[in-house]
Amino acid sequence: MPVTSRTLVADLAAAIDGPVSVAGWVDTVRDQKKVQFVVLRDESGAVQLVHPRTDAGEDPQPDPIADAISALTAGTFIRVEGDLKHDERVKLGGLEVKVGRLDVAAAALDSPIAEDSSIDKRLDYRWLDLRRPEMNLLFRVQTTLLHAMRTWWVDNGYIEIHTPKLMASPSESRAELFQVPYFETTAYLAQSPQHFKQMGQAAGFGKVFEIGPAFRADPSFTSRHATEFVSVDAEISWVDSHEDVMAMHEQLLAAAFAAVKEKHGAEIEALFGVEVTVPSLPFPRIPLAEAKEIVAARGYTVPRHDADMDPEGERRISEYVKEQLGHEFVFLTDYASSIRPYYHRRHDDDAGLTNSYDLIFNGAEISTGAQREHRIDVLVAQAQDKGLNPDEIGEYLEFFKYGVPPHGGFGMGLARVLMLLLHLPSIREVIYLFRGPNRLEP
Amino acid sequence: MPVTSRTLVADLAAAIDGPVSVAGWVDTVRDQKKVQFVVLRDESGAVQLVHPRTDAGEDPQPDPIADAISALTAGTFIRVEGDLKHDERVKLGGLEVKVGRLDVAAAALDSPIAEDSSIDKRLDYRWLDLRRPEMNLLFRVQTTLLHAMRTWWVDNGYIEIHTPKLMASPSESRAELFQVPYFETTAYLAQSPQHFKQMGQAAGFGKVFEIGPAFRADPSFTSRHATEFVSVDAEISWVDSHEDVMAMHEQLLAAAFAAVKEKHGAEIEALFGVEVTVPSLPFPRIPLAEAKEIVAARGYTVPRHDADMDPEGERRISEYVKEQLGHEFVFLTDYASSIRPYYHRRHDDDAGLTNSYDLIFNGAEISTGAQREHRIDVLVAQAQDKGLNPDEIGEYLEFFKYGVPPHGGFGMGLARVLMLLLHLPSIREVIYLFRGPNRLEP
Repeated sequence: MPVTSRTLVADLAAAIDGPVSVAGWVDTVRDQKKVQFVVLRDESGAVQLVHPRTDAGEDPQPDPIADAISALTAGTFIRVEGDLKHDERVKLGGLEVKVGRLDVAAAALDSPIAEDSSIDKRLDYRWLDLRRPEMNLLFRVQTTLLHAMRTWWVDNGYIEIHTPKLMASPSESRAELFQVPYFETTAYLAQSPQHFKQMGQAAGFGKVFEIGPAFRADPSFTSRHATEFVSVDAEISWVDSHEDVMAMHEQLLAAAFAAVKEKHGAEIEALFGVEVTVPSLPFPRIPLAEAKEIVAARGYTVPRHDADMDPEGERRISEYVKEQLGHEFVFLTDYASSIRPYYHRRHDDDAGLTNSYDLIFNGAEISTGAQREHRIDVLVAQAQDKGLNPDEIGEYLEFFKYGVPPHGGFGMGLARVLMLLLHLPSIREVIYLFRGPNRLEP
Repeated sequence: MPVTSRTLVADLAAAIDGPVSVAGWVDTVRDQKKVQFVVLRDESGAVQLVHPRTDAGEDPQPDPIADAISALTAGTFIRVEGDLKHDERVKLGGLEVKVGRLDVAAAALDSPIAEDSSIDKRLDYRWLDLRRPEMNLLFRVQTTLLHAMRTWWVDNGYIEIHTPKLMASPSESRAELFQVPYFETTAYLAQSPQHFKQMGQAAGFGKVFEIGPAFRADPSFTSRHATEFVSVDAEISWVDSHEDVMAMHEQLLAAAFAAVKEKHGAEIEALFGVEVTVPSLPFPRIPLAEAKEIVAARGYTVPRHDADMDPEGERRISEYVKEQLGHEFVFLTDYASSIRPYYHRRHDDDAGLTNSYDLIFNGAEISTGAQREHRIDVLVAQAQDKGLNPDEIGEYLEFFKYGVPPHGGFGMGLARVLMLLLHLPSIREVIYLFRGPNRLEP
């Protein structure tokens, strides 16, 4: 039975009555005296299989199919050849398949997880958790979202790069860094593709993107943190300010959300109870200082000693924007230099502020973007201003010595976007296999 | 000057004469007495800028533009506003831009590399090496190749996954593993997504793909090895044998090569002297044992003590296939169990052979594919047969206990495909930033 001969469950509705081959795993078995029912599930949906027993009644005959069905455990993968019949009385999709032949591909032990299992238990058996229709849909949504972003970039002349994850020096900070013994020396796992996507600018690549893993040895246990995560990155040349980066960023997201809504909107509404909104352009923009005043006026003073926002403040400003401007997204702009990395470009007329932004979506930050400082003398001064010794970032500074255009870009956490899009409580739910301080398996 | 106002050099040919803004880096300066010429290059091409000096001749006037041009070093990034004029006498593209305004974005030191620099020296300054039109084209080809593959997968209902690169146990072998101190324990960098893409099968995902980094602490210095490389992976359910995997693999590559030829065929011919051939389907298939006989009959006996091929054998069988069948690709099939991992499915009627293949392209191996053994009892027996303690692969075996469909897939090295497609001598030339035993920078 070659792979092409299998009919996906979702395609049965359009198929004509008659011989059909389906394959998937056993969801439930109803083993009655005269007739047996199996709900079979595959990656596209669920279908009812039916088998009228011949080993019952007045003239019982041996019935190997009935025996096989009686022995089925939930989760067992089977292939079935049978007769498809559309019958509107069948609740599940208005059709059923009468079993003609049933082959067990691999039997299953009873599932150790149930609907009420804790997230930790579910993650222990993530591959079983992923069989839930919600999780299957989630990863289809991710597939569509990523493909739409890449298509937008490709259509707009971007080059895809794969920056190395093994680095000789830290890319972001010396904290939360994974070290790797590397032959005679030590490597670090990339915390972001920051340095090397900027290298693409010095290389004259113009516009680049990358979707790949990043690593932080972050000991925190919040719903928003992981030690390994997928970072969505872009970097473009010849920007005048962060405004050019935001313009690209919002177009990209609008295209991606439109693709998700078109392909999965109805299913997302059915399974997650969420209506996908394609964001209108431009997204609202609010300078950070103003955003803090807004939330303060609405009764929340951000309890920080620095100029930054906090998660509750992000939630509140997002609430305000949703309420006043009817938008799920907001760019908070012009963060203070004191809370931004040395490589963010500062305002020409106010060195206390940077040409940078955070993007807030449905109450939480999903991305940081900025114009980068491309003038090497200013870059060195800003690094020193942050207490960095230029020697420590020597490899990075090399990129600027031989010419580089003005540029900027963003890094965005894929899992956060999905979590907030589908209103899920934790990124642990949306990462294929979550990695945290005490989670390295499976 | 917002990013949108810049005209790419490649778009000048179709632009009308008049005001234009271009930006890029200085390729060459010809600083003559009466007129100055600058060749400006951007990610899309090169254009001649011209400036008739006003500080020369009989009535010399101050000429700040002339001074700026005189001071330009190669590699400097500049923005220029000027007048576009189509003029067929101009060798470079039949047009030139008369400079009206010139702004230096970032000056450049003299380039430390030249055309005759060694590959090692060029890798030290990879971002300057990447400015070569050949390298720019290479990464555009990569972008197109990857996007075409993903589009084929997405159009065929595949789910994109991101398997973790931090693992609790080795995915392939205990050798050539990078270890990472991970909080209170030790993690390993994934040598391949093998385990976790198979987990997607147990999860009922049906068809999955991933393009991401993989790591091998491989101390070799050949032209085909790197410690970090981009692995192109797919895995599909309900295969009957490796034949189903090969059928998918060849369709995928044919679609990708067609996209590359259509978008870049002419440029590849111009810059690399290579004509891209869209492979015909099906690709030739030759059992490995037969392939060894063929190369032996042609005068080359593979000098190995095991059943495997060697690089010279791959080159020779590829030569034979090209000569006899007119094809650049060949699947070598049915590798001996003795030289394949324990998880490759063996023939039902000959446990000495596996349902596996290597894909050879233009003389070298680019991929290994196989049907996987999904029956847990057989899998355990095959592992023990290889001297593995099932406890060592306990995490992997867990995926098989709760049901799994028959499945198979492949892993393919992106850099090898590009190297062989463009007839380049080493993967070091085609990786954005090569990583080897003594290469961790930049």
